[in-house]
Amino acid sequence: MAVTLDLNSDLGEGFGTWRLGDDFGLLALVTSANVACGFHAGDPTIMRRVCERAAANGVAVGAHVSYRDLAGFGRRSMDVEPGQLADEVTYQLAALDGIARTAGTRVSYVKPHGALYNRIVHDGAQAGAVVAAVRAYDPGLPLLGLPGSAVLAQAAAAGLTAVAEAFADRAYLPDGRLAPRGTPGAVITDPAEVVRRCVALATTGEVTGVDGDTVRVEARSLCVHGDTPGAVELAGRIREALVSAGVTLAPFA
Amino acid sequence: MAVTLDLNSDLGEGFGTWRLGDDFGLLALVTSANVACGFHAGDPTIMRRVCERAAANGVAVGAHVSYRDLAGFGRRSMDVEPGQLADEVTYQLAALDGIARTAGTRVSYVKPHGALYNRIVHDGAQAGAVVAAVRAYDPGLPLLGLPGSAVLAQAAAAGLTAVAEAFADRAYLPDGRLAPRGTPGAVITDPAEVVRRCVALATTGEVTGVDGDTVRVEARSLCVHGDTPGAVELAGRIREALVSAGVTLAPFA
Amino acid sequence: MAVTLDLNSDLGEGFGTWRLGDDFGLLALVTSANVACGFHAGDPTIMRRVCERAAANGVAVGAHVSYRDLAGFGRRSMDVEPGQLADEVTYQLAALDGIARTAGTRVSYVKPHGALYNRIVHDGAQAGAVVAAVRAYDPGLPLLGLPGSAVLAQAAAAGLTAVAEAFADRAYLPDGRLAPRGTPGAVITDPAEVVRRCVALATTGEVTGVDGDTVRVEARSLCVHGDTPGAVELAGRIREALVSAGVTLAPFA
Amino acid sequence: MAVTLDLNSDLGEGFGTWRLGDDFGLLALVTSANVACGFHAGDPTIMRRVCERAAANGVAVGAHVSYRDLAGFGRRSMDVEPGQLADEVTYQLAALDGIARTAGTRVSYVKPHGALYNRIVHDGAQAGAVVAAVRAYDPGLPLLGLPGSAVLAQAAAAGLTAVAEAFADRAYLPDGRLAPRGTPGAVITDPAEVVRRCVALATTGEVTGVDGDTVRVEARSLCVHGDTPGAVELAGRIREALVSAGVTLAPFA
Repeated sequence: MAVTLDLNSDLGEGFGTWRLGDDFGLLALVTSANVACGFHAGDPTIMRRVCERAAANGVAVGAHVSYRDLAGFGRRSMDVEPGQLADEVTYQLAALDGIARTAGTRVSYVKPHGALYNRIVHDGAQAGAVVAAVRAYDPGLPLLGLPGSAVLAQAAAAGLTAVAEAFADRAYLPDGRLAPRGTPGAVITDPAEVVRRCVALATTGEVTGVDGDTVRVEARSLCVHGDTPGAVELAGRIREALVSAGVTLAPFA
Repeated sequence: MAVTLDLNSDLGEGFGTWRLGDDFGLLALVTSANVACGFHAGDPTIMRRVCERAAANGVAVGAHVSYRDLAGFGRRSMDVEPGQLADEVTYQLAALDGIARTAGTRVSYVKPHGALYNRIVHDGAQAGAVVAAVRAYDPGLPLLGLPGSAVLAQAAAAGLTAVAEAFADRAYLPDGRLAPRGTPGAVITDPAEVVRRCVALATTGEVTGVDGDTVRVEARSLCVHGDTPGAVELAGRIREALVSAGVTLAPFA
Repeated sequence: MAVTLDLNSDLGEGFGTWRLGDDFGLLALVTSANVACGFHAGDPTIMRRVCERAAANGVAVGAHVSYRDLAGFGRRSMDVEPGQLADEVTYQLAALDGIARTAGTRVSYVKPHGALYNRIVHDGAQAGAVVAAVRAYDPGLPLLGLPGSAVLAQAAAAGLTAVAEAFADRAYLPDGRLAPRGTPGAVITDPAEVVRRCVALATTGEVTGVDGDTVRVEARSLCVHGDTPGAVELAGRIREALVSAGVTLAPFA
Repeated sequence: MAVTLDLNSDLGEGFGTWRLGDDFGLLALVTSANVACGFHAGDPTIMRRVCERAAANGVAVGAHVSYRDLAGFGRRSMDVEPGQLADEVTYQLAALDGIARTAGTRVSYVKPHGALYNRIVHDGAQAGAVVAAVRAYDPGLPLLGLPGSAVLAQAAAAGLTAVAEAFADRAYLPDGRLAPRGTPGAVITDPAEVVRRCVALATTGEVTGVDGDTVRVEARSLCVHGDTPGAVELAGRIREALVSAGVTLAPFA
């Protein structure tokens, strides 16, 4: 039985003179690039360069939309009023889409970033704002998020394509949720173990949970982190192991 | 002989809690709205509201692109490298266009703002960056600027539609250039005189220059300022006088 | 019996080309100015001008410190890590103090702004960060806040002078807390009623609560809002009524 | 004959999640740290950490003031009006000084950054703004800059201590000015050659100019760059060579 999987990574997360991670290294390995749109990171020149390379490599471009928070890298939850949040999502999405088009590609999905990603797992009002913005801009754009999240439920209800992702380096609770950061074993640091879990997720849809039982995780895409030391090497090992296991790697959008 | 003219004004120049001028008042009078895109002013919510009202009123939306300078309102000349400037123009143009589309309209022209507007009158490298960005995004978009400027010359040479504008409240030198701000009489403050000049420009293509001679000013659009006290009332008087003189007011784009 | 009261107002809340309220009008009436420090509003030039006028008028200058959120005017609660928040408070406080000193005065108290003000009523960790920053900078600086708030309790426990303020235009619950905005009658809009309540607060320490009973409100300072239409006129009426009632108006710091 | 020299380096040039260079590595080697103040780089937490380590290591802290330009890292010349520039310098200087004081040290000199540094070599109006701001804040603070620059001349005329610096990795013209970047040999990349020139500058006040002749360069401080690969190692070699040559390394302020 053929399995097709997407590998996504957060890219273009520099700003001005600053860089974070090896964008071009990862663009040779992943199939989808979540590109920062200027609110938590990313300036127009970085956005263009990442889009050009993504286009050249056949990597799908996603809008990595965020709270407006350069100083906090979009990692601080903010009480943004939903109407304003929707406008800010449209602004970021449209800006990246325009740059992507001049670079020969286009935005083909949306993935919220950081604190916004985590908040719309449960905050229905902010989740609704993100869904409304994407639908108004282009109802054909899939939304990538956490399985079981409020935002994916609302996206599906609104007629958008809701795409679930799994995390290569995170432990899972018996009910399929992520073990909270800060709990023992929540982040898996052994590269060999991360690679093994990726193959298991891709070929069986199952991983071993924190209590040792088998956990079912349905995911069309696998998120590999780009901003840690050794990120490119780890992504390369994951890619190689998946291909060896007969998994076809391709963008979901 | 029928004359058609456009009235343009800089709008949406608030940010967050701050407002500048009476956007909705002017959107009832002008035919083209130069909408700030977030770099010198304008946030996504203000941009959406101005676009919605412009769409309802049949006012054309232009991207009022600027240097990245909220603190200086885009009025300070900056040595931005041309490649970076082009990327910044694309970003702003695309962001506004996306918001305009969700509001039922679209960006139909580009007008640089403030210090950028003035610099690309003579700075060929920055002018070229603006032209390149507009052409790459959509070669059908006209560029609105000063008659005789480097940017309009380059726009025309690149196949874009170059549209010249005149200023209702500025004095002209014999050669058709604007009398520099700060010279005596450079800014015309008497509303009746401003109205008279508008009618003269529209119906004869001529105004009285600073030396008393007649100056020829070819312009397809007339810029009325929106951020001064009495701006709405003055725009109303200009509009009324032009209509009375048989001028048809309509967007150029 | 002589009563001394302070009148404080949020001032210097423009940014760049934008203005909010009539700073100089209010600086002729209040005794303490909460001056924005650049994070929610306020730029160095506005800060200097407000400080110079405050110095000339004998008005005390307070640091109106905020979350870093120009786009939201500091009105959106943010999950800022306490250590980082303390550093941001120090930065703002020191910047304003330096400008005040070159203007012939100095920062003589600290009052948190907007969402930060409201959050540290109950968020002990962020309250502690604000207290730690003020104490490290100058333990002689009083902290101005809501009676019964976590931040005033922590300030007092840390040896700072904790100063409570009352609001001229807000209704009080029987226990002395503010009636939440959005509940009927929470904001008092009749100027005559606001003036009456100010005099009652100043001379008796009591106001009529939302249920008609008398509520005790201990406050050394009274906050008058500066950003509403008619703010200067209302502040003038409040000042006049207090003086007529024999209240001495003077800064608390 | 004993020679005393200062080694200065630009530090604290990260922002939020981003880092630039190895601050703590260089703080073990230099005698003066030019600390970014938030306008081109530097956030309050980075500023505090650099100040704490500088205090622990006996390194002098200087305010590395800049144009307000995070996106351009302060490297783009800007037409800032002098009065506004002065206020912006005061703001940055005071913010860093307050943070330095809570960290157990203080700002003991000022060095403009990037495009501002280069512009006030010749722009008298902006140079005057920087000098006025420093003098109003504390006339005892030295100003560090380029020998022969307008800003050092104005500083001296205003009664400030004007301190000249030399560059370890830049070539000099016969008249003592720097060979412009972009001309052949303007930047010296061979570490051994950089080290040799440092020792020559320190012990003889002379270096070999671009034309092979001896050039006299009077400098009380030597600038070593911190943001290039190998910066820490090179600074270590320079320090060691100077000490071996009998030079005493100590802050000038």
